[in-house]
Amino acid sequence: MANYQKPADKTLQTLKDTANKFRINSIKATCASNSGHPTSCCSAAEIMSVLFFNTMKYKPLDPRNPSNDRFVLSKGHAAPILYAAWSEAGFIKEVDLLNLRKIDSDLEGHPTPKLPFVDVATGSLGQGLGAACGMAYTGKYFDKASYRVYCLLGDGESSEGSVWEAMAFASHYKLDNLVAIFDVNRLGQSEATPLKHEMEIYRKRCEAFGWNTYVVCGHDVEELCQVFWQAQQVKKQPTAIIAKTFKGKGIEGVEDQDNWHGKPIPKDKADVLIANLQANIQTNKSLSPEEPVQDAVNIEISGLCMPSPPKYSIGDKVATRRAYGEALAKLGETNSCVIALDGDTKNSTFSDLFKKAHPERFIECFIAEQNMVSVAIGCAVRNRTVVFASTFAAFLSRSYDHIRMGAISQSNINLCGSHCGVSIGEDGPSQMALEDLAMFRAIPTCTVFYPSDGVSTEKAVELAANTKGICFIRTSRPDTSVIYSSDEKFEVGVAKVVRESNNDKVTVIGAGVTLHEALDAAAQLCEQGINIRVIDPFTIKPLDAGTIISSARATGGRIITVEDHYKEGGLGEAVCSAVAEEPGIIVQQLAVKRVPQSGKPAELLEMFGISAKNIIAAVKSTFAN
Amino acid sequence: MANYQKPADKTLQTLKDTANKFRINSIKATCASNSGHPTSCCSAAEIMSVLFFNTMKYKPLDPRNPSNDRFVLSKGHAAPILYAAWSEAGFIKEVDLLNLRKIDSDLEGHPTPKLPFVDVATGSLGQGLGAACGMAYTGKYFDKASYRVYCLLGDGESSEGSVWEAMAFASHYKLDNLVAIFDVNRLGQSEATPLKHEMEIYRKRCEAFGWNTYVVCGHDVEELCQVFWQAQQVKKQPTAIIAKTFKGKGIEGVEDQDNWHGKPIPKDKADVLIANLQANIQTNKSLSPEEPVQDAVNIEISGLCMPSPPKYSIGDKVATRRAYGEALAKLGETNSCVIALDGDTKNSTFSDLFKKAHPERFIECFIAEQNMVSVAIGCAVRNRTVVFASTFAAFLSRSYDHIRMGAISQSNINLCGSHCGVSIGEDGPSQMALEDLAMFRAIPTCTVFYPSDGVSTEKAVELAANTKGICFIRTSRPDTSVIYSSDEKFEVGVAKVVRESNNDKVTVIGAGVTLHEALDAAAQLCEQGINIRVIDPFTIKPLDAGTIISSARATGGRIITVEDHYKEGGLGEAVCSAVAEEPGIIVQQLAVKRVPQSGKPAELLEMFGISAKNIIAAVKSTFAN
Repeated sequence: MANYQKPADKTLQTLKDTANKFRINSIKATCASNSGHPTSCCSAAEIMSVLFFNTMKYKPLDPRNPSNDRFVLSKGHAAPILYAAWSEAGFIKEVDLLNLRKIDSDLEGHPTPKLPFVDVATGSLGQGLGAACGMAYTGKYFDKASYRVYCLLGDGESSEGSVWEAMAFASHYKLDNLVAIFDVNRLGQSEATPLKHEMEIYRKRCEAFGWNTYVVCGHDVEELCQVFWQAQQVKKQPTAIIAKTFKGKGIEGVEDQDNWHGKPIPKDKADVLIANLQANIQTNKSLSPEEPVQDAVNIEISGLCMPSPPKYSIGDKVATRRAYGEALAKLGETNSCVIALDGDTKNSTFSDLFKKAHPERFIECFIAEQNMVSVAIGCAVRNRTVVFASTFAAFLSRSYDHIRMGAISQSNINLCGSHCGVSIGEDGPSQMALEDLAMFRAIPTCTVFYPSDGVSTEKAVELAANTKGICFIRTSRPDTSVIYSSDEKFEVGVAKVVRESNNDKVTVIGAGVTLHEALDAAAQLCEQGINIRVIDPFTIKPLDAGTIISSARATGGRIITVEDHYKEGGLGEAVCSAVAEEPGIIVQQLAVKRVPQSGKPAELLEMFGISAKNIIAAVKSTFAN
Repeated sequence: MANYQKPADKTLQTLKDTANKFRINSIKATCASNSGHPTSCCSAAEIMSVLFFNTMKYKPLDPRNPSNDRFVLSKGHAAPILYAAWSEAGFIKEVDLLNLRKIDSDLEGHPTPKLPFVDVATGSLGQGLGAACGMAYTGKYFDKASYRVYCLLGDGESSEGSVWEAMAFASHYKLDNLVAIFDVNRLGQSEATPLKHEMEIYRKRCEAFGWNTYVVCGHDVEELCQVFWQAQQVKKQPTAIIAKTFKGKGIEGVEDQDNWHGKPIPKDKADVLIANLQANIQTNKSLSPEEPVQDAVNIEISGLCMPSPPKYSIGDKVATRRAYGEALAKLGETNSCVIALDGDTKNSTFSDLFKKAHPERFIECFIAEQNMVSVAIGCAVRNRTVVFASTFAAFLSRSYDHIRMGAISQSNINLCGSHCGVSIGEDGPSQMALEDLAMFRAIPTCTVFYPSDGVSTEKAVELAANTKGICFIRTSRPDTSVIYSSDEKFEVGVAKVVRESNNDKVTVIGAGVTLHEALDAAAQLCEQGINIRVIDPFTIKPLDAGTIISSARATGGRIITVEDHYKEGGLGEAVCSAVAEEPGIIVQQLAVKRVPQSGKPAELLEMFGISAKNIIAAVKSTFAN
């Protein structure tokens, strides 16, 4: 084991001075914006100074270099000190720091990847460490590179359960390239944190969760230099550094006081307080970070293709959830950048087929869906991997905040949610996703795939791998018939007219199991001399408004939507919205309208009004009007 | 300290026999339904037997008696053993257990409060303990009653962060009336759990989170009797019992084996395996639980009224978030059943006004929104309290799964989300709720209030307190003008036409800040000789379709919606859906259509197309068509 070399006294003094420069810039920027969190910056000043100018290895003018050490500011409200650090490193002009939070600046209130030195957006607390876990896992197991990952958390956010999901994940996978620093400044937003300065309780919790843990004074640059060095020597364990700090440290009359969260220093006091900080600065020097080891190779993640067409024949029975697993395993054959994650449901989502084919590229995230999504986001940053993460669609509601933040993070992760709707049957409402379309449609960067057979599921997987933004693939539990030939072309935002005649009375739009119910209804109605047009939207977002409107026009302006989802925010409302500015089109929505229950799938489809029988009744009533 | 009295040998044998009866009934029921989780039941058989027939005090024929001890089956997939226990207690006929998961039975795949002995629905893992915390907090601090709360968790679900949020909460509030039992059966759904049978790691984690902790053999009824007794003696600490068990215990060839999660015993093997279990049963006795101490009084929680009308005058400036806090504090004056929770944002949501007025009825939940919602649900069960919980609306996305389960739980909690939309300004997109209406509209039991001034906010609070199901109140950050007089009547599902003439060209529907933008637009348009009708929907769900349709008809069939929310699932789509079956109405939607950014509120309203100026342009273009 190498010996620790204490930095030279001059270096230590420069690190102290740099910390105070960070404080001054944080105060100035938040004064200029008249909003922001200077006190949350000041507690972290020495941590940031040592990390950025003693510990981390990176190219300051090439922040997204794949070999750079990563830094995640989980306590995103301390954004001004992050910007100050990158100013000191030379990437931002110091004068630009005063544009904080302005509408024409990318120096937003909380960091986003509009800034090249930000990998993931933060600001919803407790999410940074999970993303850092994804980066560290990728560095250690996929890239097998030297870069290390540092994540700075606030003490307040350690109340978030997602932090402890990440803590368990990191030790389980022995992420010794990961360091979490807890800035324990004692004060939350509205009162003291539950643990205040109980450093030993933090230590016990981190140790119990399997981390190599140090408790330090977070304002002592020498101590920080040493523990960050020690962390680099530790094998098979992540390191937690519990730093005792004071909120507003260095600001006279503000340090360690209540009621200073998220408040800039009053302008009439700022000059004096800044002068006080300035008086502590003894050097005029700037430090430079060490160069990284350039051992993370460039990776090509575009133009992913399936090695062969779908193997299904029309009429085959296959559940779309199984087709998802089969497609993913296949995609992985010819694309080594593809990885898969699951939350201990892999034998239900069928991601286990990927695991069996490519065990080294599968990450079991156990029953911790928030962390699974964060890890996925972390794995996907800097385009290191193409990620598919799956669980029951109902349980992605657990991660909604993380998915929301994923959009702000400009993430390209792909999520698959299985077991949608009442058609899962006996397990009952807790396992039925009936709000997932509403959830994912309201994610602005999201493409929502809702494939209805094996072929279109395979195409959805291939398209998702190549589609920027978040992709969601909704799969179903029951076996359904393959309705497309294996050479059918699918595109995002292009619907399929799966049944039509030149005498259709109504356009019926269904997806997943309800498309099959609609086809069944169409066949029965046809025997009664009533023709209907049936549309498979394929993607619910973007929705193919053109095909829907032209079909509606061809069928007397009548549309019936039928979905295994609640009425709000799903397929039906998407259609209503798509035709809202078109006069002369009316839309009737068949959807689940109350909390469902256990029962057999077919019984439930009928009880909740979305079976072939219900469609037939709706068609007849619409047609009668 | 009292001495532990070991139960008589006969009693111990009967407890063992009862456990095996539970196993047999769990196997029989899941064989009958041909689905379910018998192996997850079998690991917990002795725990359930001892809890229900040695430890807990309750009236078996009056399961919702307020003085009963509470039991939460967090591992909801073990529902069959819960039903078996209540059958043994006499509340369910044994023969009815065979109706498990049938469409005409309330014995669903996972427990729901359709069954009087279930307080909260479970089945999304990791949520039971938070609800149990709410019940225990209520018992200790509000009811000040003797009842105790027991929560049985699986080991797999202990990976969920929400479990550790609840662990931290329970020890922080010294909930010595709470016992969590971890059924550590080693096996998850698709593989072994991360900690397998590492009992000492579980112990360390629980102790680090402040719990009095015992590691026991979960199949030893005597040991279980003793630790449950010991737990009752402990003051100021909750107790965790880490029970080492085996999945499928007692089922030959299945016990402790992989690939038996969620699978009934094959019918051709069931008879022999049941006979094996039957052979272990030595007594014919049934045990009865001890009677509870009847010291939880009945509470009246209906007909809550404000003590006085709103104090605001038309034209006053007040943010609806502040009006929420003022209203809640006022409601609390005359209604002692009202309690408030917050997640360390109380000085932003203004729930701190309630805390200042009624400190003993405020629960600080710190930055753990999932647990906050679960605690709220727990506090509200058996109608013990009327709960209002608040945080930034964006952070309620963190709790979406818990809110979803709250609907299945038939919960009556009220949630307030502040800081909606881009109008919060400089803090940026991570803090802006732009999907909350989509989220809450897709909750089937939810009433969604979106008040636009101080008076209507106060009315919303009063109405929410009296409205069954989940209520969501969306509040805004900026100060806005009071537009209603204090004697204005408000009802759920009744919109207000806030501006009209007999010559209106368009109906504009806004809410919150966009209602004020619409009124501003109307005033400017009026000066140009163009009249528009302006509607305040007050509740977005239910939406007042009648007023909207009649207004549209009176304004040439033209509607413009304008909302500080993403286009999907919000006000605009709600309106589209409400008019979808009405011919001749067209709806144009102004909404936020991409990830926003930091900036001043007015700048952002304009940049994202929802300002008065944008409304004027939309009106003119609609009118021109």
